[in-house]
Amino acid sequence: MKTLTNATHDPSLKSWVASANSGATDFPIQNLPYGRFRRAGVDEPWRIGVAIGDQVLDLHLAYRQAPWADEVRPLLEPLAAGDLHAFMALGAPAWHVLRAALSAALAEGSEQAPFLELCLLPQLQCEMSLPCRIGDYTDFYSGIHHATTIGKLFRPDNPLLPNYKWVPIGYHGRASSIGLGGTVKRPQGQTRAPDAAAPGFGPCQKLDYELEVGAFVGRANALGEPVPMDQAEDALFGLVLLNDWSARDIQAWEYQPLGPFLSKSFASSISPWIVTMEALAPFRRPFTRPAGDPQPLPYLDSGFNRAAGAIDMILEVWLQTAAMLDAGQPAVRLSQSNLTDAYWTWAQMLVHHASNGCNLQVGDLLGSGTLSGPKEGTYASLMELSANGRQPITLPGGEIRAFLQDGDTVTLRAFCAAAGAVRIGLGEVSGTIAG
Amino acid sequence: MKTLTNATHDPSLKSWVASANSGATDFPIQNLPYGRFRRAGVDEPWRIGVAIGDQVLDLHLAYRQAPWADEVRPLLEPLAAGDLHAFMALGAPAWHVLRAALSAALAEGSEQAPFLELCLLPQLQCEMSLPCRIGDYTDFYSGIHHATTIGKLFRPDNPLLPNYKWVPIGYHGRASSIGLGGTVKRPQGQTRAPDAAAPGFGPCQKLDYELEVGAFVGRANALGEPVPMDQAEDALFGLVLLNDWSARDIQAWEYQPLGPFLSKSFASSISPWIVTMEALAPFRRPFTRPAGDPQPLPYLDSGFNRAAGAIDMILEVWLQTAAMLDAGQPAVRLSQSNLTDAYWTWAQMLVHHASNGCNLQVGDLLGSGTLSGPKEGTYASLMELSANGRQPITLPGGEIRAFLQDGDTVTLRAFCAAAGAVRIGLGEVSGTIAG
Repeated sequence: MKTLTNATHDPSLKSWVASANSGATDFPIQNLPYGRFRRAGVDEPWRIGVAIGDQVLDLHLAYRQAPWADEVRPLLEPLAAGDLHAFMALGAPAWHVLRAALSAALAEGSEQAPFLELCLLPQLQCEMSLPCRIGDYTDFYSGIHHATTIGKLFRPDNPLLPNYKWVPIGYHGRASSIGLGGTVKRPQGQTRAPDAAAPGFGPCQKLDYELEVGAFVGRANALGEPVPMDQAEDALFGLVLLNDWSARDIQAWEYQPLGPFLSKSFASSISPWIVTMEALAPFRRPFTRPAGDPQPLPYLDSGFNRAAGAIDMILEVWLQTAAMLDAGQPAVRLSQSNLTDAYWTWAQMLVHHASNGCNLQVGDLLGSGTLSGPKEGTYASLMELSANGRQPITLPGGEIRAFLQDGDTVTLRAFCAAAGAVRIGLGEVSGTIAG
Repeated sequence: MKTLTNATHDPSLKSWVASANSGATDFPIQNLPYGRFRRAGVDEPWRIGVAIGDQVLDLHLAYRQAPWADEVRPLLEPLAAGDLHAFMALGAPAWHVLRAALSAALAEGSEQAPFLELCLLPQLQCEMSLPCRIGDYTDFYSGIHHATTIGKLFRPDNPLLPNYKWVPIGYHGRASSIGLGGTVKRPQGQTRAPDAAAPGFGPCQKLDYELEVGAFVGRANALGEPVPMDQAEDALFGLVLLNDWSARDIQAWEYQPLGPFLSKSFASSISPWIVTMEALAPFRRPFTRPAGDPQPLPYLDSGFNRAAGAIDMILEVWLQTAAMLDAGQPAVRLSQSNLTDAYWTWAQMLVHHASNGCNLQVGDLLGSGTLSGPKEGTYASLMELSANGRQPITLPGGEIRAFLQDGDTVTLRAFCAAAGAVRIGLGEVSGTIAG
């Protein structure tokens, strides 16, 4: 989509921050994601920064230390105050102007470089927090291959429900328990064994991860005012990785008739850097439906969405067990899938969400649902990989896994790569199970 | 429960605010609920007040104008600043101390009366807002008669699912669209007629109300740290009425497999005054299970809960159509049920919610689920009253209703009455459907 890209996407652009130019980093100058950080171990206010190579540009300092154009200073002001939410609320034109300014400031030859050099902090010396307060969190179910594979486990002849290809299925999630990973405590809960007369209460025995991508909403709509498709893109600020940790045994017993609840609400983990939708412009792809599938209803359809609604992004799950860690063995990749495996685009999910007049707010988080592909090697949860535990997988060191064990570390990664574009990534989110 | 009550519940207590002593008000001196208000039509900061009779005691003014004991002033401070959330976070002992102080200050013969007279505003001159920011909203399904009646519509032989009597079923709701009623816009959405080949998109044709009670969480638990039953009561601040507006046609098409979503998220309405759990002490009742039903699992059981977990509160739904309003006809009562119709207590719902380590936060809202009784006259939604539209009801003026029409005003009311106690109420919440 040539019309979506601009000078900030130029693959020949280099930064005066050397680590941004390696070709291997998730955060070249073409990316410029936002996050909230402070110096690790220091009790100081959280600041907003931009990841560049292996560094963070501290926008609190950068606002004060470097010269900025008059039109840029008011956009930097909320970020300098540590408030990403207020910056998002300025709207898509403001996001665009600041991206261009940051790109120029971090580019080789920038006159601001001598000032901004003093505003860098190595990412390894940073502690990260959630980038902003998440008001409401909604999890969609757009991974059609996941929905099909899970459906087959329970309804072999009829894996997809009749509404799936018409409705972007979603449900409200728990916002308070969203974090950045780290230690994830194995939940307790009520479960019932298939042959048991009564349920019991105890530690989850079927703990799982789910590979998802999350989108931060950057523009509010008033209650009662739906968002039309042609305004949806401007309401999407950027993407993160999302691990929707799931307790399958709790889920199986609790979820009828109102959906998953405690099987999910014990923890969800996102990656700390929000990669803006503008940064992802070079990786937009046509959104098409398989032959024979229904076309989206008019309220979920637009020419732009058909031409460029999808995003080509490679998604990976990596696992390192405690024994692998002890033995010095690196993590093993469990799956690789793609964001184009989603059956609905971000714009469609957002528009559907607001179609009843529900008021979305700046800082709301939308989850994609588990993004599995259709074949082996692409299954993005252990539920799928092990056929609900019936076919445990064997890891390279000989360990087997049906579900997660204490000490297991799950890491999600995502990156975009395409001819004529510099590779950019979402970074990663990692969680280690504790008993 | 004699041990739960104290001098603030004394039925002989009168207030120097005359309207509080009528015997008919929801807000006698034994109630003292908290709300957030400002003078109607005046663009001024929101303030926290206490409803007394037909007046509001302005705590911003009261803090400044009247003498208060040293131990009381720091408790009033956040309320004087308009922050109910910060007051709730002080914890149950603080709630108790301030209640006693407000009761004494508003009682006949109070030395503070001459000062506090200047801090009253008629409720009719007030505009109300949500009492505090609602972080997460969770809706339970504790109305067993509602669950049974709805279940019968779809599964006549097996209305209650196997988990119902073991698990306090609940799901995450949408927090952003919770308001105080007023105008409620009929949502649009995707629906499919039973005989249609494809779904369509348009205005909801089966708009309904649900009578619920909501509980505000007043104490947070850290992520990963469940709340035991013996700490649950101190985590519950107070109750409000809750209308969980529901679009039945949207719900029927969307809700499998992840639960209700857009059929609910267009609006939920609560009453503006939070009646504290302490005010409800005289109406606590033993919590018992019908013979033959399973007893709660140990994590949901306690001696206190068995002795006094239930609350005897009468719940009513009133309807006034546009034609009734034009003709000067008063609203008609559609149902009367009781909070004791709940199959789970507030403590059990809260403990279950946190049992997986989910972090509840001050200001979270828990919904009871629709509280219908078991027989005619107690059905707390039109879905039940009209058997999903198959048996429309006839109103006194001759109009019929299967579901809500534009111009219909639904009002929920609730009050507690018992021998030896002064009647107290939750007030009301009203919403009028707009096309």
